[in-house]
Amino acid sequence: MQSNINCFFSAKSVAVVGATTNPDKLGFLVLKNIIAGGFKGRIYAVNQKGGSVMNLQCYKSLSEINEVPDIIVVIVPSSSVLNVIEEAGKLGVKGAIIISGGFGESGNNELERELVELSRKYSIRIQGPNCQGLIYNPNKFCASWPLVSSTGHIAIIAQSGTVGAEIGIRAQEEDLGVSAIVSLGNKSETNELDFIKYFSEDDNTNAIGLYLEGVTDGRRFIELAREVTSKKPFVVLKSGRTPQGKQAVQSHTKSLAGMSQVFNGMCRQYGIVNAKNITEFYDLLKGFAYLKPPKGKNVMVVTSSGGSGALAADELSESGLNLIRLSPEIEKDIKAALPKHCIVKNPIDLTGDATPLRYKEIVSKVSEDKNVDIIFVVFGDPFPGVGEAISSIRDSIEQTLVVCYLGGGEVQKQERSIMHRNNIPVFSSPEGAVHTINKLVEYSDYLGITRKEE
Amino acid sequence: MQSNINCFFSAKSVAVVGATTNPDKLGFLVLKNIIAGGFKGRIYAVNQKGGSVMNLQCYKSLSEINEVPDIIVVIVPSSSVLNVIEEAGKLGVKGAIIISGGFGESGNNELERELVELSRKYSIRIQGPNCQGLIYNPNKFCASWPLVSSTGHIAIIAQSGTVGAEIGIRAQEEDLGVSAIVSLGNKSETNELDFIKYFSEDDNTNAIGLYLEGVTDGRRFIELAREVTSKKPFVVLKSGRTPQGKQAVQSHTKSLAGMSQVFNGMCRQYGIVNAKNITEFYDLLKGFAYLKPPKGKNVMVVTSSGGSGALAADELSESGLNLIRLSPEIEKDIKAALPKHCIVKNPIDLTGDATPLRYKEIVSKVSEDKNVDIIFVVFGDPFPGVGEAISSIRDSIEQTLVVCYLGGGEVQKQERSIMHRNNIPVFSSPEGAVHTINKLVEYSDYLGITRKEE
Repeated sequence: MQSNINCFFSAKSVAVVGATTNPDKLGFLVLKNIIAGGFKGRIYAVNQKGGSVMNLQCYKSLSEINEVPDIIVVIVPSSSVLNVIEEAGKLGVKGAIIISGGFGESGNNELERELVELSRKYSIRIQGPNCQGLIYNPNKFCASWPLVSSTGHIAIIAQSGTVGAEIGIRAQEEDLGVSAIVSLGNKSETNELDFIKYFSEDDNTNAIGLYLEGVTDGRRFIELAREVTSKKPFVVLKSGRTPQGKQAVQSHTKSLAGMSQVFNGMCRQYGIVNAKNITEFYDLLKGFAYLKPPKGKNVMVVTSSGGSGALAADELSESGLNLIRLSPEIEKDIKAALPKHCIVKNPIDLTGDATPLRYKEIVSKVSEDKNVDIIFVVFGDPFPGVGEAISSIRDSIEQTLVVCYLGGGEVQKQERSIMHRNNIPVFSSPEGAVHTINKLVEYSDYLGITRKEE
Repeated sequence: MQSNINCFFSAKSVAVVGATTNPDKLGFLVLKNIIAGGFKGRIYAVNQKGGSVMNLQCYKSLSEINEVPDIIVVIVPSSSVLNVIEEAGKLGVKGAIIISGGFGESGNNELERELVELSRKYSIRIQGPNCQGLIYNPNKFCASWPLVSSTGHIAIIAQSGTVGAEIGIRAQEEDLGVSAIVSLGNKSETNELDFIKYFSEDDNTNAIGLYLEGVTDGRRFIELAREVTSKKPFVVLKSGRTPQGKQAVQSHTKSLAGMSQVFNGMCRQYGIVNAKNITEFYDLLKGFAYLKPPKGKNVMVVTSSGGSGALAADELSESGLNLIRLSPEIEKDIKAALPKHCIVKNPIDLTGDATPLRYKEIVSKVSEDKNVDIIFVVFGDPFPGVGEAISSIRDSIEQTLVVCYLGGGEVQKQERSIMHRNNIPVFSSPEGAVHTINKLVEYSDYLGITRKEE
């Protein structure tokens, strides 16, 4: 029986087999990123030619290292991979991340079969082959590219290195970060099920994102999904929805898609959040990792940009969400607290001369209305200080607090970083925020936490 | 009769009335941005208190300046605006950008009426009041915030300062730039029609983007739109599509929306490109400003990321575009030119070991197939050199060349900048690119340039 895959996430030592001084090679880039990511454990470089790489002695083989590394990263020609795994297995290495291609994806099914056999023989877990590696930021482990070392609470599992990287880059650029990125590659010995299971139990991960081309085992996938979605949000982007997409998927990962309607139905039935494209995938992960599911669909918009407020109102309305009217008492209080030129409807428009304090006061006041389920704050313009203002009241607000920021340039970036460091997700467009709110409301329904009176 | 509005775009001198040393005030920020934007003309600061601001002498009134500035930017309390305009009018100032609020939007309709009367009396054109200013990069004139000085060929006219700023910021961050951003404000004396007309004749502008809450004059809007769309693309994002959005719009700019179906029909009929949200608005402007309308809807995808290719194939297929099969001869040539592990279907997958040269060769080869109308290149991973490679063959390609780049981190940013400087737009998501392709195909139909045999 195989051991579990914890080795990939708690490794105290790693050897990069195929480390090289040639900066155009992945054996260079991956070692560089492991070092630059600040890996807490011991790092070894292995290359049969010896020498040194990035100030590390280069061992000619794994056996030469004076300890057995917990895991290895393999970036050698496919013809040498089996030898490396055999050696590692005999030594007692627990896991191998095999980046090398040239297996099933190139028609070399026999080679891939032998790889899996070896892995079983020596109880060495395999991620890949033909993958873009693995990042796990709680362990400061970045055996992938590009370097995504900004730590957050989203774990991404992707049957495409590019899709995983793209989400990681977006999260890093916005100081939101990720907990993990796993590139599945050929799914030879481990597959999406192993990693979904791991992240469902990982305290560093609030939401799991999966980019999938084909499901390995439909029945087990459903069982696992059902278990996961009762614990934490599970967002899936699936390609192969159309005949043309299916053909592309089959060429890419030999996956059999061809079940898009079945898949959509399954998502609804088991509380899986279904993303329709890359942009929505990122927005949904951002929202679900940090926002509590709302108690209903009553939304109050607070903005300083009339135009963004109008766009938000259209999007909310088109999504079937309810732009609630405040209770008369609270509306009266808010009117009294605001200059005459502000507009107290829904949206509440604090107008362009709004201040962080005005935002803070009004959002707090709105939160006193218990018929409001979601407070949707849309910042326009540069407003230094709003990040701190919103962060300071977040814990006292019972409602789901959704923030969007537009048109603020450099100030917006600063304030967004402050909010992201305080675990308040900030959306870049009204429509992105509203699509997320809509899916959050659906998830509340699935979990059965929607208010009774609705 | 009023003179034309060219003064705003060709000013050789500007005075900021309400310039101040207080960095929290717009009178500081706008003057700072005019200077930082590198305005080619003479800059004057006016403040009744005198003194100096940012190393400029501060004149106590416009009359004290030893020339008559072409235009003025007004940022004083609303109660003083009429005096400023009267003085400017008497002096012969040609135009005033009035940022000050406190007019019709606050219920002071009488004050706004008097403003328009004054403007007519002295033939001084007014932009605003209650607006976020004006940017025209060919004249290096940035009387707005934030500073958007990156020069490109998109002109934005917006009935919301935040929406205009957001598009400008996105374009600046990607080194794509804009030609202009005009914030309409209350549309007292000038309105969208004046600026649409101006940009339709402006050689520095390839595509016009309009964010609109309400049309000032429906009939003239249609006449003008029809004239514009035969010359250059005209992209419109309209809010007030739903009852809730309409109410928000009415609160914001007192516009009467309430014609969303009529508006959609009008767009179809007159070749207006209808954007449905902020993200699409930006993507469409990016595409339409730089891409030639395709001769048909046959798309060939070339990628190095199987996953992104599959997502692109799904999106293309769902949009009703045609993933064409290459002619047998060209397919044969391409197979011969590529390593065995590459996949020559549609998408063509050059796989993760692709090089700029491989991209260049294959895209060139694909362009020999005259049944292909659109070549859609989807880069995955860091690929230094692809920007240069694609730029070098662009002029020899007859087809519409659409580029998307995902997952490439810092390298992606560099390469995107290179392509943007070479007027090749780069999309950040397959879906954004595909929505744009779809609208380009519709525009070709409108223009009647679609191939006959289709």
